[in-house]
Amino acid sequence: MNQRQQSPADASAESSAASEGNRVNAVSRVEYFGADAPLALDSGASLSPFQIAFDTYGTLNADKSNVVLICHALTGDQYAASLHPLTGKAGGWWAEMVGPGLPIDTDRFFVICQNVLGSCMGTTGPKDIDPATGKPYGLSFPVITIGDMVRAQAMLIDRLGIKDLFCVIGGSMGGMQTLQWATAFPERVFAAIPIATAARHSAQNIAFHEVGRQAIMADPEWHGGAYLAQGANPSKGLAVARMAAHITYLSEAALHRKFGRNLQNREKVTYGFDADFQIESYLRYQGMSFVDRFDANSYLYITRAMDYFDLAADYGGVLANAFKDTKTRFCVVSFTTDWLFPTSENRQIVHALNAAAANVSFVEIETDKGHDAFLLNEPEMFSTLRGFIDAAATRRGLKA
Amino acid sequence: MNQRQQSPADASAESSAASEGNRVNAVSRVEYFGADAPLALDSGASLSPFQIAFDTYGTLNADKSNVVLICHALTGDQYAASLHPLTGKAGGWWAEMVGPGLPIDTDRFFVICQNVLGSCMGTTGPKDIDPATGKPYGLSFPVITIGDMVRAQAMLIDRLGIKDLFCVIGGSMGGMQTLQWATAFPERVFAAIPIATAARHSAQNIAFHEVGRQAIMADPEWHGGAYLAQGANPSKGLAVARMAAHITYLSEAALHRKFGRNLQNREKVTYGFDADFQIESYLRYQGMSFVDRFDANSYLYITRAMDYFDLAADYGGVLANAFKDTKTRFCVVSFTTDWLFPTSENRQIVHALNAAAANVSFVEIETDKGHDAFLLNEPEMFSTLRGFIDAAATRRGLKA
Repeated sequence: MNQRQQSPADASAESSAASEGNRVNAVSRVEYFGADAPLALDSGASLSPFQIAFDTYGTLNADKSNVVLICHALTGDQYAASLHPLTGKAGGWWAEMVGPGLPIDTDRFFVICQNVLGSCMGTTGPKDIDPATGKPYGLSFPVITIGDMVRAQAMLIDRLGIKDLFCVIGGSMGGMQTLQWATAFPERVFAAIPIATAARHSAQNIAFHEVGRQAIMADPEWHGGAYLAQGANPSKGLAVARMAAHITYLSEAALHRKFGRNLQNREKVTYGFDADFQIESYLRYQGMSFVDRFDANSYLYITRAMDYFDLAADYGGVLANAFKDTKTRFCVVSFTTDWLFPTSENRQIVHALNAAAANVSFVEIETDKGHDAFLLNEPEMFSTLRGFIDAAATRRGLKA
Repeated sequence: MNQRQQSPADASAESSAASEGNRVNAVSRVEYFGADAPLALDSGASLSPFQIAFDTYGTLNADKSNVVLICHALTGDQYAASLHPLTGKAGGWWAEMVGPGLPIDTDRFFVICQNVLGSCMGTTGPKDIDPATGKPYGLSFPVITIGDMVRAQAMLIDRLGIKDLFCVIGGSMGGMQTLQWATAFPERVFAAIPIATAARHSAQNIAFHEVGRQAIMADPEWHGGAYLAQGANPSKGLAVARMAAHITYLSEAALHRKFGRNLQNREKVTYGFDADFQIESYLRYQGMSFVDRFDANSYLYITRAMDYFDLAADYGGVLANAFKDTKTRFCVVSFTTDWLFPTSENRQIVHALNAAAANVSFVEIETDKGHDAFLLNEPEMFSTLRGFIDAAATRRGLKA
């Protein structure tokens, strides 16, 4: 089943992408922003040129009112519901959420998923060539923020001739982008669904990110960020970073249920440092497979963008002010065993929305799957989102 | 104030230590076990010769009935209440617990704290010379278990002419040793106080240990464990391991209270990878200072011993059987915000003790300090332990 359908917007993107130089191959569609369209960054720097890789599903309707923008998480990409060109994973990372008849119904909505700025799947990031030097950016790539990511996304939406978005949705860092969209461009977002996220990155989460960055930077193959120019790759450091992060995506209960103290293909422990336990084998696999698809410097930049996220800081420290007079309808979703973005963090968003008299519903979903639940088969999440999206679509006047 | 007092046992230990070769300098006392006293390990291997470094406080009474054995945690040492020779920390790691008039009252008890087997503060471990090769053991050191650690400790207690222990106490891995003592040598333990611990290491905890080990092993300076022979030191990998572990010792609440999103000596973020946030600076310091006092291979061996700990496994999978007919009095202590060894794990110990009709009291202490609380100023912990120890001492017939 090929969910992609050619739309006018797609065609325009492809022809635009084909007409200029200095771009990176991507399997998905690409939009290129040249010297006439620089991106002003929160740091004060300006990024130009740059490109955005994205994938789309479904068909844009005549009045362009059926657009759903999916924002991906830290190590996600534009392949929300399509074949991943590196891993070969067929259905995409949100295959159970996005498709014909699914909660994000591609028979009804035109779905866009963009690779975020700073990443490594076709959108400009530190692994790409700096036109000023002819070498990969490495650490000379400017530090970016969630706000920068979203402004870049808005430039793509403009380029596609789309005025506003029926819905913006995302989990984890995707939820941060969703909140950023709803506050930076409130008039362009009809409905917003931040899932398993927070309005500011916590000290503990900054701490875990810092461990991952230090693991990468400790790898001599990192070469101060210039590993591509050296033909090197800090894969061991990146694998350690991924392993540490991966633990935070799961719950203690899920780890106990899935692995417990089960041994890996052996009757008893070996009294050594092999992966005696299934959990060790699993973690090592997670680390090793990650380095085949992700760039170490992108990991540094995107974790940093999350660390810097603090939505209230731009509004005098009062989160409710970020949502003042908003007309956007919100659905906030959290998971009981998510300790990376616990319900308390999500509830702070809800409290701020309530204080701003916004239209908000909030669901905490009972699960033992931890933070990763937003990517998994969670029937209660699906039914919650189906209900919210359907009701919003009706309110928007989209036909069923 | 010098809490050490010369006891007959001390004198014997010192003279014994002075009489044989192949030993490592330690500031504390040392007992040497030669070819006539090999240690049979759970792996089936035999360790010989070996030595145990230990410190003592207080005075052994005439009938040797006032001995308190303190078991230290993963990166702890014998300096529970005395000057640390490497860090220069004056009062010891449990200065508020051990001393004249304190819960473990050195005016009343003779307190012994041994450096565990496999560690690096004077007791034999992987950094020491393998007499078979004349080179540091490195990875040829046998993998050890909590059971091995405790059997080695019992050999020291025998050597000191002590028949039984009034009390065994320890937090975290020290709690595992306490449980091992109480089950391997039930007739030798009058009272046992396992704190913030578990009867078996959880999948999540094995996972965090594995991340730390992989960080060390990923460091090219590790040289397959033979770094000492190469004049190298995998300090970057060990620092990353420590940083990751350190997060697990604290609670999210404590991190938020202590650091939040506070910046480190700056007005605003730098849009870079310096330690903008206090939590980053703190973690980096924790990592860097740790490598000055700890051996990377010891970290591998001791984490592995904890991973392997599963007390019920030796008793048909039924934890209560481990405590069958025990006469030891137990006091189990947990902390509300400890997510490394949560109350649920401690409660499993209590349930097993109840099922064995043992004498047990259980206190969960309200604190926001996380796992580290057992090392910190926790008045409720102090008053709980003072009450339990005093009552047990009265029952034992020790004069106040």
